[in-house]
Amino acid sequence: MRPLIAIDWGTTSLRGARLGSNGEVLASREFARGILSVAPGQFEAVFHELFHDWMQNPDTLCLISGMAGSRQGWQEAPYCPCPAGFTELVKHLLWIQPARIALVPGMSCMATDPLKTPDVMRGEEIQIFGALQLAQRDTATLVLPGTHSKWVQVQAGRILNFKTFMTGELFALLSQHSILGKTLDLKGAFDEAAFLQGIDQSQQPGSVLHHLFAVRTLGLFERMSSTALPSYLSGLLIGEELRTQAQLTGSNPVILIGSEALTLRYTLALQHLGISSQCRGSEATWAGLFALACNC
Amino acid sequence: MRPLIAIDWGTTSLRGARLGSNGEVLASREFARGILSVAPGQFEAVFHELFHDWMQNPDTLCLISGMAGSRQGWQEAPYCPCPAGFTELVKHLLWIQPARIALVPGMSCMATDPLKTPDVMRGEEIQIFGALQLAQRDTATLVLPGTHSKWVQVQAGRILNFKTFMTGELFALLSQHSILGKTLDLKGAFDEAAFLQGIDQSQQPGSVLHHLFAVRTLGLFERMSSTALPSYLSGLLIGEELRTQAQLTGSNPVILIGSEALTLRYTLALQHLGISSQCRGSEATWAGLFALACNC
Repeated sequence: MRPLIAIDWGTTSLRGARLGSNGEVLASREFARGILSVAPGQFEAVFHELFHDWMQNPDTLCLISGMAGSRQGWQEAPYCPCPAGFTELVKHLLWIQPARIALVPGMSCMATDPLKTPDVMRGEEIQIFGALQLAQRDTATLVLPGTHSKWVQVQAGRILNFKTFMTGELFALLSQHSILGKTLDLKGAFDEAAFLQGIDQSQQPGSVLHHLFAVRTLGLFERMSSTALPSYLSGLLIGEELRTQAQLTGSNPVILIGSEALTLRYTLALQHLGISSQCRGSEATWAGLFALACNC
Repeated sequence: MRPLIAIDWGTTSLRGARLGSNGEVLASREFARGILSVAPGQFEAVFHELFHDWMQNPDTLCLISGMAGSRQGWQEAPYCPCPAGFTELVKHLLWIQPARIALVPGMSCMATDPLKTPDVMRGEEIQIFGALQLAQRDTATLVLPGTHSKWVQVQAGRILNFKTFMTGELFALLSQHSILGKTLDLKGAFDEAAFLQGIDQSQQPGSVLHHLFAVRTLGLFERMSSTALPSYLSGLLIGEELRTQAQLTGSNPVILIGSEALTLRYTLALQHLGISSQCRGSEATWAGLFALACNC
């Protein structure tokens, strides 16, 4: 096993880890140097500045996942089409320095609807394979909550398809820029009861476009406090995701990958609908890149 | 019949009309003096400045609908709870000058869901009664598209219940502030084919939170032009409204009230789903206030 530098280069942040021969993290670094902060043509220089000491051993392998492989990144690593597993990911690696530094491609899939709408991910694919390794499973439903939440179906180690939901971005837009922001107090702590009321309400007949307006009227009529309303709004939006996805989860626990604050909400919501889950954090990324290195 | 001044005092604009004894518009005025532009305590002064000449006849009656009757307006005219018809609206008029100037109350209703979520309208109620008068109907489904679209059920001249959808506001937020804005070109003309593709897609299984993301990926994969994407997004959102409301419309034409640009889109969308409709514009407001004056 060659020495491995694993890097997750996202839109707003850059994290790196030096991994040992069993995949253990020997050292890690994090910088506010996401791709949005890097001028075109400067990726190699930034990489050298931040990681040259780790790259001194000529035998070192470096794998980079995330938005660094996008059109706005270091170089574009074209999407690997689903269904796909590790084998395809290895084949689609984009080598920046032959056999030394590679960008992990994102993945794409196509819906079965009449328009055959495409979907994409970049960075999540490696977290998915890492989490499966850690859970010692090759078949699962995985959920990666966030700005653009992903629901992913994996069977026999291959990502069959996935769907993106604009849940996190809508929460931010609605609470910061919409009329709902006028009744919300975002400084309040997470309110579990209000959150679960939102989950329940989202399972009622009717559209989320209507349910959302109640965030205003419940405030106007003083039926819910301004500090509880953000949790209610969060419940409405996460519940809308679950309304259409929960029946696809099967009997095994759903694997949640993300920050503690977000996976806690999804754990509660899934549990409320009778679905068990297990959580993974950033360790999934390192495990995924390590597994990829073992297959290179 | 006393001389009537009908006024629609909204959030961002103020419109007034002097009506004849058959409800015909003798003169009308419009000002960018919505309630947001009026300092607290200054409503009477602004009203006097803009309409004192029309109010010189001591016999003149003035009825004011819209946000002027809200907590942030001239005075708060408390919501009239549904079901309610003209009789209740007359009873709930808030007289600012006895028998001379009155604010029309908004309406509220309560959903039948377990949370009994409230809903509210202010200004739309008078358009609804006006449009029914003009259509000579006392039972109808009415739709008032806009920032906060309303779907309204009227039976035997009484508003039974209504639902608000944040459709227009979400369109604005998503096209101006979200990641979707990066692939949209808002300067394009309305694209009917893309709009109807959006309507079709919104009727597919799955959540609008997922369908929305295709606005990005259809752009990324160059499957739809940046000028067509705003129409597709509009179709997705209006279609989501129709997905849950279309089955409530019955066999008679739906009455649409609003600007020409918006009612055109709803006419197309309803027609696409096999539902007929007829449109009304600002004349509905004057007809409603005139009918109210006849019942004062």
